[in-house]
Amino acid sequence: MKINFNAEKEFDIIAIGRACIDLNAVEYNRPMEETMTFSKYVGGSPANIAIGSSKLGLKAGFIGKISDDQHGRFIEKYMSDVGIDTSNFVVDKEGHKTGLAFTEIKSPEECSILMYRQDVADLYLAPSEVDEAYINKSKVLLVSGTALSKSPSREAILKAVNLAKKNDVKVIFELDYRPYSWESLEETAVYYSLVAEQADIVIGTRDEYDAMENSEIEGKNENTVNYLFKHSPELIVIKHGVEGSFAYTKSGEVFRGLAYKTNVLKTFGAGDSYASAFLCALITGKDIETALKYGSASASIVVSKHSSSEAMPTVEEIEQLIAKNETISIA
Amino acid sequence: MKINFNAEKEFDIIAIGRACIDLNAVEYNRPMEETMTFSKYVGGSPANIAIGSSKLGLKAGFIGKISDDQHGRFIEKYMSDVGIDTSNFVVDKEGHKTGLAFTEIKSPEECSILMYRQDVADLYLAPSEVDEAYINKSKVLLVSGTALSKSPSREAILKAVNLAKKNDVKVIFELDYRPYSWESLEETAVYYSLVAEQADIVIGTRDEYDAMENSEIEGKNENTVNYLFKHSPELIVIKHGVEGSFAYTKSGEVFRGLAYKTNVLKTFGAGDSYASAFLCALITGKDIETALKYGSASASIVVSKHSSSEAMPTVEEIEQLIAKNETISIA
Amino acid sequence: MKINFNAEKEFDIIAIGRACIDLNAVEYNRPMEETMTFSKYVGGSPANIAIGSSKLGLKAGFIGKISDDQHGRFIEKYMSDVGIDTSNFVVDKEGHKTGLAFTEIKSPEECSILMYRQDVADLYLAPSEVDEAYINKSKVLLVSGTALSKSPSREAILKAVNLAKKNDVKVIFELDYRPYSWESLEETAVYYSLVAEQADIVIGTRDEYDAMENSEIEGKNENTVNYLFKHSPELIVIKHGVEGSFAYTKSGEVFRGLAYKTNVLKTFGAGDSYASAFLCALITGKDIETALKYGSASASIVVSKHSSSEAMPTVEEIEQLIAKNETISIA
Amino acid sequence: MKINFNAEKEFDIIAIGRACIDLNAVEYNRPMEETMTFSKYVGGSPANIAIGSSKLGLKAGFIGKISDDQHGRFIEKYMSDVGIDTSNFVVDKEGHKTGLAFTEIKSPEECSILMYRQDVADLYLAPSEVDEAYINKSKVLLVSGTALSKSPSREAILKAVNLAKKNDVKVIFELDYRPYSWESLEETAVYYSLVAEQADIVIGTRDEYDAMENSEIEGKNENTVNYLFKHSPELIVIKHGVEGSFAYTKSGEVFRGLAYKTNVLKTFGAGDSYASAFLCALITGKDIETALKYGSASASIVVSKHSSSEAMPTVEEIEQLIAKNETISIA
Repeated sequence: MKINFNAEKEFDIIAIGRACIDLNAVEYNRPMEETMTFSKYVGGSPANIAIGSSKLGLKAGFIGKISDDQHGRFIEKYMSDVGIDTSNFVVDKEGHKTGLAFTEIKSPEECSILMYRQDVADLYLAPSEVDEAYINKSKVLLVSGTALSKSPSREAILKAVNLAKKNDVKVIFELDYRPYSWESLEETAVYYSLVAEQADIVIGTRDEYDAMENSEIEGKNENTVNYLFKHSPELIVIKHGVEGSFAYTKSGEVFRGLAYKTNVLKTFGAGDSYASAFLCALITGKDIETALKYGSASASIVVSKHSSSEAMPTVEEIEQLIAKNETISIA
Repeated sequence: MKINFNAEKEFDIIAIGRACIDLNAVEYNRPMEETMTFSKYVGGSPANIAIGSSKLGLKAGFIGKISDDQHGRFIEKYMSDVGIDTSNFVVDKEGHKTGLAFTEIKSPEECSILMYRQDVADLYLAPSEVDEAYINKSKVLLVSGTALSKSPSREAILKAVNLAKKNDVKVIFELDYRPYSWESLEETAVYYSLVAEQADIVIGTRDEYDAMENSEIEGKNENTVNYLFKHSPELIVIKHGVEGSFAYTKSGEVFRGLAYKTNVLKTFGAGDSYASAFLCALITGKDIETALKYGSASASIVVSKHSSSEAMPTVEEIEQLIAKNETISIA
Repeated sequence: MKINFNAEKEFDIIAIGRACIDLNAVEYNRPMEETMTFSKYVGGSPANIAIGSSKLGLKAGFIGKISDDQHGRFIEKYMSDVGIDTSNFVVDKEGHKTGLAFTEIKSPEECSILMYRQDVADLYLAPSEVDEAYINKSKVLLVSGTALSKSPSREAILKAVNLAKKNDVKVIFELDYRPYSWESLEETAVYYSLVAEQADIVIGTRDEYDAMENSEIEGKNENTVNYLFKHSPELIVIKHGVEGSFAYTKSGEVFRGLAYKTNVLKTFGAGDSYASAFLCALITGKDIETALKYGSASASIVVSKHSSSEAMPTVEEIEQLIAKNETISIA
Repeated sequence: MKINFNAEKEFDIIAIGRACIDLNAVEYNRPMEETMTFSKYVGGSPANIAIGSSKLGLKAGFIGKISDDQHGRFIEKYMSDVGIDTSNFVVDKEGHKTGLAFTEIKSPEECSILMYRQDVADLYLAPSEVDEAYINKSKVLLVSGTALSKSPSREAILKAVNLAKKNDVKVIFELDYRPYSWESLEETAVYYSLVAEQADIVIGTRDEYDAMENSEIEGKNENTVNYLFKHSPELIVIKHGVEGSFAYTKSGEVFRGLAYKTNVLKTFGAGDSYASAFLCALITGKDIETALKYGSASASIVVSKHSSSEAMPTVEEIEQLIAKNETISIA
């Protein structure tokens, strides 16, 4: 099965939501208390996906709100420089700051993030700042779940999804669940269900689908896809870490993608690089099995490098890794 | 055309949302500054509709949150005494108060309400307090728009609508638009569209549909129904004040109901009494034309009396007024 | 000892703080759930004291913020009608409402108040709205403690106290402690100490002084006065309910006032009527012993009547009760 | 004139308020947009003063609230390592973050700071977390104005000042005015006056005294000192940038300190290094003229270096600079 995208649309993908700053430990393999220097990168799931997509050759755009300061201007310039259309960035005029993520890499297995997300600019994107004509220009609208966590960003996303469906734009919902962004798990479940039911493609980890289902125990993929296929989705990707990922189609097919061996530096950025490469493959007409390989390969490359955005691979790098064919096999 | 309700459900109607206190001027036909005494009644659109429905003989239930004080206890007792199942009232444990509405009746044409709606208990109904098994017992879930104006009540309503659809319970959306409850018109439009698209029956004034459409000018009924009939609704009622109301069906029928002559005391409560009588007629198997007459007659009776809830008519009173057949004709 | 007031000042007393609405049960001696009608009065401690003072013949003014609605206009008109200068009332332009107090009188011993104090207008009085020239016109600035519970009213009071001291205006601090208005007891203690140390006269119940001292157990009057007399106060009144009240002077005198027998209807309003009569006596040159009698007599009269403000007595009523000399003696 | 400190107290100085993180541009002399690496230092006015004091040989302690994360732990360890007693640091348990200051150095004349101060831990220090016995151990309590900008830190400071005065601990008020921390200038003025009137020594720039006086135009030192000397202060320092600083004593003396020539890298940290050296001189028994030199020399050293805290000089460095005697003379 292949997903059909409207070929007449100018943009391949428009992502909506947060674009932030990552401050990555320059001195790592130690607790952050002992890190004295930090490197600055653009971060945030939808920004990373737009950057990854652009580096893979897609025509990408972005809808988001950035702070009216040095960090906001850096974000816009960086994203513009990698080829993303930034005409729909809105500059916040009420003093809200850019979100920050300080990364701590104690070891490849022990990574954590110290987040600054209090009243950040990206969550102040308002529905009036979402332009129907702009969304209408794209094959795909990429929504990441964190943007649903607070008003008015929440309403901006709900409006954008409504406009996408009205204008034959595929809605891709990347669950991107960050518990600290939400009041409660049940609040998450309400909005994740609402958007997932309206999406064409849903991508997430098993844990993230559990959040959508308001479940504190691990759910079954079978139940998840049975539920969602009663609504709009035609393709559902459920990721299971090193065990690989599964893609389910409405017509009943199931595909499995395996993870590629790599030299893991940290775990950040894996999901975003997966999503951008998987979507790139689909949008450029590859089949689902190939798209799963693209996603896995791209994730493997990013976790071996220091940043999430700057490290996004090219098509050549992805295809080289796929060609080596060294997947991780789990008993 | 008739609407089919699931006859096996125990309750005719379960309303969800606010139940508050009206403080009506005892001395009226004067500015409220000169009113020295106020009478206490239960108020709030969904509570009024539940009370009206119960007085018309329907089996009604209610889902809502009430304050842990004398006002909250009064509301529960009053509603229980008129025959409503109050088992799903939740008592607020965080000190939130019952909403208040002081009514001012300067003349039948000059009525206003002084609202106390700051952090009121009804807006703190949480999604976890909405019980699927309870909703599943009813033919109809009655949602009024104001409950969508703030979290967590907003999420409780979205969850209730989702559960109703999953369990073959008709969703009736009474727009009940109160501008002061909302951050912005566009926020209203996002949630009103979302719920209206999922509802089976939508009821509101022309002004309220304009809010749903984020329009500052008066829209056309034709456009409204064309839009909504692309989604779930099968019946749409648009009220035009003394010019009467229009009912549109998905199958293309249009019906008009005329207003009945009455001795107007005040304008409060007209919409709630209309909704309860209109729905009662539909649920008891009457046709749409008769339901429009029920709605109009009930509204005419309530605007001639002092309260909104206590004044809700019986079926006999409604049928007597319809029999007199004194409608208001507009050139 | 007599307190000397600056005889050249035009006003006897200017009170600052809240002016609200009391909604008193018309049908009482029952739970409020069964009360169906409420009578409207002006309420709020400093408003009541101003009203009481004015009825006793003092020239009174008021500084406060009222809602831009029927309740706010009623308050201003009522207070103006009893002779208070209302030129320094500020009308709130941001939609804040007037505070409400529904009174419940189950029996003379069981009275309670259901408060609506969420974001009320009186707590939005800003320091810029406090006029030095106006304060400078008064012999006395009457501050009640509740106005210190939230910003910006808190800062308005601190500024007013500062201006009073600079302009030879006596600062009277009526503790008026309402626990529900505060974040914590220790927050109360910080501001109560700060203002009490700067005041010339402090009036409160033993409980209220315990709040000032951040003490959960009953403190000793001796310690309280030793502490406060190290700072500005020259007269301290500590009330002990039916056991009467004690007045302490910086020069070491102690006076005791006894409570008068009365037919108690409810307990509301006792403190405000006490304060207005006590201060009236002092300001008109009576000695402290007489002032204590005035306070007690006035309190006894008000607790026998339905309202707090409307019930404030005249000098004649007070003197008649004192003349009867029926005090309550406690073993 | 010399200031007398209670020689029996164990600590020379206890500072109270914020301890934060500075992220200083590694690549500077450019806009921050082009800075890709940042170095981490402890920052925040009272923390810097404590660090400066400790490096000058004083026995220093600190009262403050830090985040329960890597940044909070870094702060405590750094300050402990420079010799400060950190036993009265409180770890925030409600998820508040450490404040951040990203510094931009475009040129020595064009420096700016990008602040992250939204709901930061230091502003959540509560009055209950201020320990009288600890304050009682110190000769000096150093208060910086920003800690007064929000509750509950505001009340913690007011309580600390009250306890200091009660226990013969000198209160030093460093005005440290940051407009973005405050709701309004008049709110600042209320609290700055309140604390300045109770302080023993007040230190600030002319601009900061203007904030205390709620004045939008530059005030006169004469008026400022006339006002404050009516209250507790015995020594007032008013700084005029490169024109030097003035020290006024209650007994009528005036001293002027001149700025020292230096190679300015940036302007941050000048005030804090001034305060620590000035106070160190006073506490160690030097006269006011010498203390002014210490302050100026210390400021000159810090502005020539990259950080504010790490750059704090030793007594030897200060005395060497004073010995060179190259002051800036302004016509």
